[in-house]
Amino acid sequence: MKKIAIFDSTLRDGAQAESISFSVADKLKIVSTLDELGVGYIEAGNPGSNPKDLEFFTEVKKVTLKNAKLAAFGSTRRRNIKVEEDSNVQSLLVADTPVVVIFGKTWDFHVTDIIKTTLEENLCMIDETIRFLKAKGKEVIFDAEHFFDGYKNNQAYALKTLETAQKAGADCIVLCETNGGAFPDEVIEIMSDVKEKISCEIGIHTHNDTGMGVANSIMAVLAGATHVQGTFIGFGERCGNANLSTIIPNLQLKRGYQCIPEENMVKLTLAARRIAEIANISLGEHMPYVGKSAFTHKAGMHIDGVTKAPISFEHVVPDSVGNERRFLMSEVAGRSTILEKVQRIAPHITKDDAVTGQIIARIKELEHKGYQFEGADGTFELLVRKALGKYRPFFDLEEFKTIGEEPSHSKEISSSAIIKVRVDGKVEMTAAEGEGPVNALDKALRKALEVFYPELKTVHLTDYKVRVLDTKSATAAKVRVLIESTDGEDYWSTVGVSTDIIEASWIALVDSIEYKLIKDIEKRFKAYL
Amino acid sequence: MKKIAIFDSTLRDGAQAESISFSVADKLKIVSTLDELGVGYIEAGNPGSNPKDLEFFTEVKKVTLKNAKLAAFGSTRRRNIKVEEDSNVQSLLVADTPVVVIFGKTWDFHVTDIIKTTLEENLCMIDETIRFLKAKGKEVIFDAEHFFDGYKNNQAYALKTLETAQKAGADCIVLCETNGGAFPDEVIEIMSDVKEKISCEIGIHTHNDTGMGVANSIMAVLAGATHVQGTFIGFGERCGNANLSTIIPNLQLKRGYQCIPEENMVKLTLAARRIAEIANISLGEHMPYVGKSAFTHKAGMHIDGVTKAPISFEHVVPDSVGNERRFLMSEVAGRSTILEKVQRIAPHITKDDAVTGQIIARIKELEHKGYQFEGADGTFELLVRKALGKYRPFFDLEEFKTIGEEPSHSKEISSSAIIKVRVDGKVEMTAAEGEGPVNALDKALRKALEVFYPELKTVHLTDYKVRVLDTKSATAAKVRVLIESTDGEDYWSTVGVSTDIIEASWIALVDSIEYKLIKDIEKRFKAYL
Repeated sequence: MKKIAIFDSTLRDGAQAESISFSVADKLKIVSTLDELGVGYIEAGNPGSNPKDLEFFTEVKKVTLKNAKLAAFGSTRRRNIKVEEDSNVQSLLVADTPVVVIFGKTWDFHVTDIIKTTLEENLCMIDETIRFLKAKGKEVIFDAEHFFDGYKNNQAYALKTLETAQKAGADCIVLCETNGGAFPDEVIEIMSDVKEKISCEIGIHTHNDTGMGVANSIMAVLAGATHVQGTFIGFGERCGNANLSTIIPNLQLKRGYQCIPEENMVKLTLAARRIAEIANISLGEHMPYVGKSAFTHKAGMHIDGVTKAPISFEHVVPDSVGNERRFLMSEVAGRSTILEKVQRIAPHITKDDAVTGQIIARIKELEHKGYQFEGADGTFELLVRKALGKYRPFFDLEEFKTIGEEPSHSKEISSSAIIKVRVDGKVEMTAAEGEGPVNALDKALRKALEVFYPELKTVHLTDYKVRVLDTKSATAAKVRVLIESTDGEDYWSTVGVSTDIIEASWIALVDSIEYKLIKDIEKRFKAYL
Repeated sequence: MKKIAIFDSTLRDGAQAESISFSVADKLKIVSTLDELGVGYIEAGNPGSNPKDLEFFTEVKKVTLKNAKLAAFGSTRRRNIKVEEDSNVQSLLVADTPVVVIFGKTWDFHVTDIIKTTLEENLCMIDETIRFLKAKGKEVIFDAEHFFDGYKNNQAYALKTLETAQKAGADCIVLCETNGGAFPDEVIEIMSDVKEKISCEIGIHTHNDTGMGVANSIMAVLAGATHVQGTFIGFGERCGNANLSTIIPNLQLKRGYQCIPEENMVKLTLAARRIAEIANISLGEHMPYVGKSAFTHKAGMHIDGVTKAPISFEHVVPDSVGNERRFLMSEVAGRSTILEKVQRIAPHITKDDAVTGQIIARIKELEHKGYQFEGADGTFELLVRKALGKYRPFFDLEEFKTIGEEPSHSKEISSSAIIKVRVDGKVEMTAAEGEGPVNALDKALRKALEVFYPELKTVHLTDYKVRVLDTKSATAAKVRVLIESTDGEDYWSTVGVSTDIIEASWIALVDSIEYKLIKDIEKRFKAYL
């Protein structure tokens, strides 16, 4: 089994993405997640350009890593100074990581027009910086920036920079497709040529500006690269970096390379979701392997096929990466789809049981009212449980009231909500202000229920969508509210329909809370159920 | 220049994506957007499996298309019946499109184990269906479903299905990578083999389950395909279809193929954003070419490089696809884009007028707050008018209050609103009940204003969309409300942003009413203006 070194740059190149900003605590959590998954290298920051990163490198020393080596990122020394006097290079030593990555220019145009030095001096910068760091005992990775554009523009010079890095002792030379504009056929051709001329380990670092970041990395590996750089869920400057959560299973499950320990592949989806959570972004639903929809089927014919044989419409088994298959409840879904979902909750139910008919009738009735269950697994499960008698309410609503005023004492619209709930005979009444009536009601409800169910503190909503069903009736139309919630581990979606947006939101909120509470009971008391 | 037929399936395969559901009006808008861009084929529905699609095919006949041919999608006849007795095939004729697409099985395993017939009967199904449709005068595209998996499993049989389709008269045979599991090297190899054996036009249809949908399509074209199927912004079942908004510029700007008329390439970004808006989804910020961040630079060194020479960190010029460069630290204006819009309202304004700078500053300020003017022509026009001094308010709000109660005297949630407005010194105070606070407020506002402006009686809202901007803040997040209004003659859209859904709706409602009143003044007094 050919081994591929996986090099994650979520904390360095990923941090260059718009709206991404990590605290030291965030970075430590991401390091643990990646290390547990079994990634080989974690590039954790740029100590020379970012003082926050230096603080992190001090903190991370307290963590014992099982699989990964930490790397600090910097550049070759600046032009016309001694390497030991370059503060950037010095801070790489202060970071005190076993591995250092330095990037250097390989595109002649960048040397002369952007950093404005001579081609010869650039070679000295590469040579001296690598020698200096090797002498300090570091494993040195040389990031050959813009290598593909450099090769296309001045092949001889671009190759010369690699030869210089190799002679200076670089442990690995990474061909960087910095601008993300290359095509797979070009990557194959150029990588193959480099493999003939350079004998040390060769890596690949691609970006996604042509939507081919993953393909370019894969083609580079097929052409001989043994080290792959990317960010774990693909974010990075502009269109992002090559997505490692796609590359790893592509290579390991489909081409027989070893990227992470085999037994860890089932943790892939959870790792991706955790990193999205820490980065405070939504993981793309359609992301290969790890997205919520990656193994979701909607067309009746596909559902029929997958039911007969998963291979008919799935290229890998969802379990292999810790994800799951979902069948959407759409107008086209038939009895067998619904049954499959029912059986996940109550495996003994058959197609001909009376309760199956009742569930189907209830679904049809709700769909007629405007409900849609394809994006609302949480509400669907509650509906099935109610039909099976495996449900009792967690609280009773006594009353709520929402109030919006403009102008208010604070000079802009103010919204507030009052709520009274009853749990096991105990009444809790509270109030909250919020950004709009739904938010005020959401806050008031949680505030009241957390008194009885402290586990609700981990829950928050990650998405809130409103769809007007009968657009002709405009603001009086029925609306469907779809909310997605998470407790940091799982995601679930619930739905509510009403002509009143507050009521529709309320229905979805209540389902979200009840789903969470049932899920926790199931987890805690699995052995007894 | 080699011509590539671009075949968009947003309305058919795209509609199989989770949470995508198009109304007939949505579909008509998408057809116009794609046709204006210059796409060659629009696959607009599956009339046999979905009665809603048949209604659409009747409506779409009223639209004159400039560039695109419409296609209806279905399958080969079912096993063991006569093609003319197959209701699915019949409904393809009812759809009455110049082009029909039929998919057929090419993977022997699917023939025997999924649709459960013989290999021979499957060939008859392909042959007879194509001959039948050709005899009816249709341009017939044969979608060779699962072709790559079929070829890997039973090469001779897979090729036999293509030969059958060719002999029966198919105008184009499309190799479908249905399960999305193939790699670019496999696509090159298999496409090259097919090109040697089949002489009619060959197309490619890929999915994104390995994150390589775009690359697989591109490699197929390099190996001889002349027809590319995908969805415009990539959504589709599971991980989505090949993204045409990436493939088109990849092929046309970087490899010299012609996919759409050259002068339309600058409309690419707007088309992608419009389709996302109609589909009620967020366009991925990092989407190649058309995403908001596609040409956004954050790292200091990148900004420095791009300032010296765009090519240093951009693989194409953002203007070439109608997108714009953004520097996250120091924003530089997309002045010409905005000017183009301003001149539509005030043709005499030039780039260097002070007012242009003011408008740009205001737009940037509002965009920063979450406004988006692409789907809100009404609000944009009001903004320009305000800057030009061609505006005065039609009323002043004194106060409003909304109240929601559950349970109420009527046993379900009741919403009401009280409002006080002032027009030319006269005060009108009124109240209304409604379906939710926004509807109550909408009704109360109209009721109050109709006293002064009876022409508002013809106005009603036709669409009301809510988008959560910062999904992590859930119900406390900023929301963007987009409403579309009509007076039976024209349609216009307005937008409001706030953390409070009532306030965001209020802003959009006020703009809608003011836009209508201005529009009427313009019409009535055109001769005097």
